[in-house]
Amino acid sequence: MTDSTRLLGISNAIVDVLAHIDDDFLDKIGAPSGSMTLIDENRAHEIYAMMGPATEMSGGSVANTVAGFANLGGSAAYIGRVKADQLGEIFVHDMRSLGVDIRLQPAADGAPTARCHVLISPDGQRTMQTYLGACTELGEGDVTETTVGKPGVILLEGYVWDIAEGPALAASAIKIAKANGSSVALSLSDSFCVERHRDAFHAAVRNGVDIVVADEDEVNALLQTESFEETTRKLADYDNLFAMTRSEKGSVIMHKGETVIQPATPVETIVDTTGAGDAYTAGFLYGLTSDKSLQECAKLGTYCATNVIQQVGGRIESGLLEGYTG
Amino acid sequence: MTDSTRLLGISNAIVDVLAHIDDDFLDKIGAPSGSMTLIDENRAHEIYAMMGPATEMSGGSVANTVAGFANLGGSAAYIGRVKADQLGEIFVHDMRSLGVDIRLQPAADGAPTARCHVLISPDGQRTMQTYLGACTELGEGDVTETTVGKPGVILLEGYVWDIAEGPALAASAIKIAKANGSSVALSLSDSFCVERHRDAFHAAVRNGVDIVVADEDEVNALLQTESFEETTRKLADYDNLFAMTRSEKGSVIMHKGETVIQPATPVETIVDTTGAGDAYTAGFLYGLTSDKSLQECAKLGTYCATNVIQQVGGRIESGLLEGYTG
Repeated sequence: MTDSTRLLGISNAIVDVLAHIDDDFLDKIGAPSGSMTLIDENRAHEIYAMMGPATEMSGGSVANTVAGFANLGGSAAYIGRVKADQLGEIFVHDMRSLGVDIRLQPAADGAPTARCHVLISPDGQRTMQTYLGACTELGEGDVTETTVGKPGVILLEGYVWDIAEGPALAASAIKIAKANGSSVALSLSDSFCVERHRDAFHAAVRNGVDIVVADEDEVNALLQTESFEETTRKLADYDNLFAMTRSEKGSVIMHKGETVIQPATPVETIVDTTGAGDAYTAGFLYGLTSDKSLQECAKLGTYCATNVIQQVGGRIESGLLEGYTG
Repeated sequence: MTDSTRLLGISNAIVDVLAHIDDDFLDKIGAPSGSMTLIDENRAHEIYAMMGPATEMSGGSVANTVAGFANLGGSAAYIGRVKADQLGEIFVHDMRSLGVDIRLQPAADGAPTARCHVLISPDGQRTMQTYLGACTELGEGDVTETTVGKPGVILLEGYVWDIAEGPALAASAIKIAKANGSSVALSLSDSFCVERHRDAFHAAVRNGVDIVVADEDEVNALLQTESFEETTRKLADYDNLFAMTRSEKGSVIMHKGETVIQPATPVETIVDTTGAGDAYTAGFLYGLTSDKSLQECAKLGTYCATNVIQQVGGRIESGLLEGYTG
């Protein structure tokens, strides 16, 4: 029997530092356009010193989803590690202000709160340089019966496997979920992350993860397929629920032989695609934990993603469902 | 003989914390819509805890002007007090990344870096709750021949008079300017600030300040007039240069009998009026320190203000003059 929390996220708690760059910048730092690179603290200072004036806002993929879920009106909780510094205060404030139950206190010592330098090219493409800082200190001991409780769904992100005790704490979360009847969802984060941890993700998907949320590239990377058509054929062998986003091609949900195809909603102008997948996941899981049909879940996910790409920033706004007509 | 720095700003160094509020919020905190209230640290924590998710970016009126001036390509320097904390690092980074010469090191101890809670009402109106923190520790000893140098223009803001040693350090700045041939400009900040310090501003304007930048309400408050027409009649008695903005009515420059009237540039959509006056001042002073005519200065100011109200945030973007055709 689960408790009143519908969604618990476990992920890297990150403050985004967003700045516009010119076309030469990525060459100078040697980063492929659109990539996410993990960097150390010295490199973070170097990159930041090279960047122009920036804007700071709370980010992190699964954290965005949890914030969005709370904004939709769902009870949500969060496990992630920040330091008790000003950026940590910002991260925790932004979550708490939405009613998210923060299960870990900011750490008094250790590495500073994580930041992701989001470099926005003239064409709108975003390249990320992430200093994980305090996130790397999230440990197996932080994921316990007490901190996890009995939520409806536990949502993990692939990036958790990038931190030292990530695989162990993910295993703990899955074990606690199985004991209490919580579902486990895994967001595959990005296709490079899938390349880094493919075997571990396969093991998790075959043994404990109920729901996989991913974009087309990520799920193709997981299954090592050349096309989405090949992916959908292979998924016939899986019992997991796969919720897969395909940008302007919409989304596809597959679960035990049922396939739901949801077209994208055309928009006049895309302001910023940041967080589109995270917002989709928020809407999808909000539907799922409200016992909606898969089609209805896909509609809710699409509604949230459509909203977030028409604004700056990766988190959906409050009161969004007031305009939802299904 | 002045040095190569064209503009030196002396002001409160502030990081803005921007969030949308609903209509009840201002009633709850007892703040008039559109006002700027100075608050202490405890109140800052209270207000922040009541606010929804926020976005952080460097702000401060004269700091915005200095950043804008540097963005236009003018050599600029800045004196303001931040602590060596994460928000202080953000403020200094955003200035340095534009090439602004930061004349004071962040303080190792003392109050944290200032923040202004910018509360955005559904109608777009902005109400500010400002915790001055480290700004209040800016002292007379920070404004010396060494830190000031010999810039073309020294720009002070009215808000400096809100801090303990503000009047004394402003007097020092004016004295150093007079000794070295620098001009002194004073931004009147807001009409409530003028009410608080009218006598001091009058004394400064009569004795040392060469240029007054203000919007219509502020200059009316300074001269205690009922209308802008009455203000312009009274200004015939002043030798100072007055650069006055009037929103959609454009701007008026008056100097020793010369009056320049510059209409506003019509825009289809105003995204955010934050920093319109600060951007105007940046353009105006950029023109003035390039020995342009007053009409040309007013055009440059209008060009910058028109740009900044069509984007989110109070600072103008780099490369702006590339599109300027006069």
